[in-house]
Amino acid sequence: MDFSIRAANVEDCKDIARMIMKLAEYEKMADHVKITQRDLEQDGFSKNPFFHGIIAEVPEQHSTKEGHTKIGYALYFYSYSSWSGRAIYMEDLYVMPEFRGKGIGKALMSKVAQLGLAAGCNQLNFNVLDWNKSSLDFYFSQGCFNITTTMGYNCMRCEGEALEHLAQP
Amino acid sequence: MDFSIRAANVEDCKDIARMIMKLAEYEKMADHVKITQRDLEQDGFSKNPFFHGIIAEVPEQHSTKEGHTKIGYALYFYSYSSWSGRAIYMEDLYVMPEFRGKGIGKALMSKVAQLGLAAGCNQLNFNVLDWNKSSLDFYFSQGCFNITTTMGYNCMRCEGEALEHLAQP
Repeated sequence: MDFSIRAANVEDCKDIARMIMKLAEYEKMADHVKITQRDLEQDGFSKNPFFHGIIAEVPEQHSTKEGHTKIGYALYFYSYSSWSGRAIYMEDLYVMPEFRGKGIGKALMSKVAQLGLAAGCNQLNFNVLDWNKSSLDFYFSQGCFNITTTMGYNCMRCEGEALEHLAQP
Repeated sequence: MDFSIRAANVEDCKDIARMIMKLAEYEKMADHVKITQRDLEQDGFSKNPFFHGIIAEVPEQHSTKEGHTKIGYALYFYSYSSWSGRAIYMEDLYVMPEFRGKGIGKALMSKVAQLGLAAGCNQLNFNVLDWNKSSLDFYFSQGCFNITTTMGYNCMRCEGEALEHLAQP
């Protein structure tokens, strides 16, 4: 199937917001999604964007029954490792279920890797849920490794009242 | 003990590089450190920096026996959650052993939290090694939680030849 991969622009935020919710539903975490189309527009497409996006698109004749032609996305931002330097972080990688198995996810991730290398990054980092075996298998097949199970890295978070409290001098 | 917390500048990179190595030694990972003072100068203090730094400093009379007055640091960068929006990521938090237990680590982390909140961030994220019980205890005492053990998030990485290969179209 024909598909194209391109940089996201502000007009894509409605579809990105739709697919973020679909990904969260798949991850059984839909109630965690607070983001809106407006947030994405402001945070990703202003002067100092907090993230960048990539869109996978199919021609009209392959659109979903709801009429969607934007059927996958990746979000990423630049990050840093104090050991190995410049890095790129892939926040999300998603392809709508009816378009999986066609190399679209691989193409999106490959684009993130290209952009990272072009910016001098030595690492592509991302998180995955430990029960998501099909995603883990895909990532392992691409030569990725799990630094939680192999090196002991655990992800920590501070938010809400704890973050407000921590910020008190 | 008197100490001050301030934004890092390019002149701090020598000391940051020294302390990055000390932190890696503490984490039993010194052989993973490829970063140099020059990398930090270029990547953190150019037009589009990949990270920002905070320095903890003590007065001359409290300097170490080697003469160091810069005795702690934090590195951070802005990131993004597709569920909750703007976030800040703390890459490193380190205080030299002889200066621990004086609230310096807390003050550095508090500064990262302040900067995050000021930028509209809803989360402070970071990684910790699962065997590093004293750090985990400190973070838990600040209201942080472990999203690896509670939600199943594992950290994944692609680098080296696998990253080059992934980037092939």
